[in-house]
Amino acid sequence: MSDRTPVQNAELALLLEVTGSPKPGNVDRERDFDDLRFEHFMAGAVGARPGLERAAAGERVGQAFERAVAGMADQSAGNTQFGALLLLAPLVAAASEGDLTPSGVDTVARDTTVADAADFYRAFEHVDVAVDEPPEGMEPLDVRRGSEAVPTLEARGLALFDIMARSADVDGVAAEWVGEFGRVFDTAEAILADDGPVPDRVSRAFVELLAEDVDTFVVTRNGSDAAAEVQRRAQAVLDGDEDAAALADELVDRDINPGTTADLVAGALFVALERGLVV
Amino acid sequence: MSDRTPVQNAELALLLEVTGSPKPGNVDRERDFDDLRFEHFMAGAVGARPGLERAAAGERVGQAFERAVAGMADQSAGNTQFGALLLLAPLVAAASEGDLTPSGVDTVARDTTVADAADFYRAFEHVDVAVDEPPEGMEPLDVRRGSEAVPTLEARGLALFDIMARSADVDGVAAEWVGEFGRVFDTAEAILADDGPVPDRVSRAFVELLAEDVDTFVVTRNGSDAAAEVQRRAQAVLDGDEDAAALADELVDRDINPGTTADLVAGALFVALERGLVV
Repeated sequence: MSDRTPVQNAELALLLEVTGSPKPGNVDRERDFDDLRFEHFMAGAVGARPGLERAAAGERVGQAFERAVAGMADQSAGNTQFGALLLLAPLVAAASEGDLTPSGVDTVARDTTVADAADFYRAFEHVDVAVDEPPEGMEPLDVRRGSEAVPTLEARGLALFDIMARSADVDGVAAEWVGEFGRVFDTAEAILADDGPVPDRVSRAFVELLAEDVDTFVVTRNGSDAAAEVQRRAQAVLDGDEDAAALADELVDRDINPGTTADLVAGALFVALERGLVV
Repeated sequence: MSDRTPVQNAELALLLEVTGSPKPGNVDRERDFDDLRFEHFMAGAVGARPGLERAAAGERVGQAFERAVAGMADQSAGNTQFGALLLLAPLVAAASEGDLTPSGVDTVARDTTVADAADFYRAFEHVDVAVDEPPEGMEPLDVRRGSEAVPTLEARGLALFDIMARSADVDGVAAEWVGEFGRVFDTAEAILADDGPVPDRVSRAFVELLAEDVDTFVVTRNGSDAAAEVQRRAQAVLDGDEDAAALADELVDRDINPGTTADLVAGALFVALERGLVV
């Protein structure tokens, strides 16, 4: 078993996620987008570290996340790992409390407060994140308002967990927050049960997740039809009817980026490393 | 200018070094050796961090190095970044003292003591490093003896700087220690003066260094003829007579690994990041 701390494993999870290849539609060891490249993910992972250290130290999860995002954004390409950090902050907190289980991280998530929600909104001031228009009646809580939304959060008494619950049907990361991080833990076990070099396991886990459900980041950026197509074609890869590398090249060319699925893989890698995955 | 600390820049330097591609004969973004792969360098960089933090905190440079090596070795492939850490430990120490200059790091190097030398020998107990047979009369100080050599170090009053001076003619990293880190600083300036994505600059800097002098790690593992050939063919790449990627594939196939040159690039990346290199 490695001597790495939870913070080290969280950072390594971010690095191994982007190293896994092919991961159709994502930056991976072999593919870049024009302005979002592999090295930006390296700098994002290194920059996120002080925020992750706060999560491990038992500081407010929202604040740890906001600090991690601020550090992640300290490179020239903008958003690299926002969603991954939103998963890692509570996972690192649970691990540091010695209870990295679905119920342990669920407790962390449900214990968040209005202050955590305010931190979450402030995090959007560090970086542009592609998001949907808010649902009707939620305009005052549009995340793009950043800290301007804080008075509304306070007036309505909304904790970060409540905010996640309101987005769970349109955001795969929020769905984890309110679903005991089920896909994260399942994928961690799949990675552990797999064999071969870790980046190859990452690629397989990514394609499995992509075939299992639509990627909500693709829905937001490219629409439901594109997301359904990506899911169907990931299944075709699993069925042996499509080549993963060719699909990866095509999706990058079409600017279709299943970033939420990559976030889930980063969370799963963290859990797998904590549970003894050997690199 | 980035808000990254010297420790973060040192870690990022390790990550960017291995990302640079092609780097003929080394693991890079596109090439692995069978048992020494990209992901091992990720884990090595993350693992080295606590040792680098000690260097930044002003602890003994030898001890910081020894701890960095212990953490680096916490992955399954053995030695990934031993030489790079031997450069980074004094460079991080100098940066943290606010004097990341040739004379600043020279002071750090010359201020080392017998205790630092003992730490250095202990570092060899964490990992197998390819080294030459010791020169005649130096057998008691063969680094492969690890801590067994410590009484001899103490009896002879040899500081880490003295040990480096004794190896400077056969080890390119030791040559930096006694040469004010001249190639490291020159290469940092070359990377800063270059343009384009950082991994492309890394590749060019690597080939320039390789053409400039024989790689001492290749001399040790593959012999002087192989090292001379590598230097000559790197010059051919610069002259446009050879393709860098094809040479990279060939050297990996032949198990010719200019690791010392990679170490110099990692040190140079650290200096460049501290001086404002934008990722």
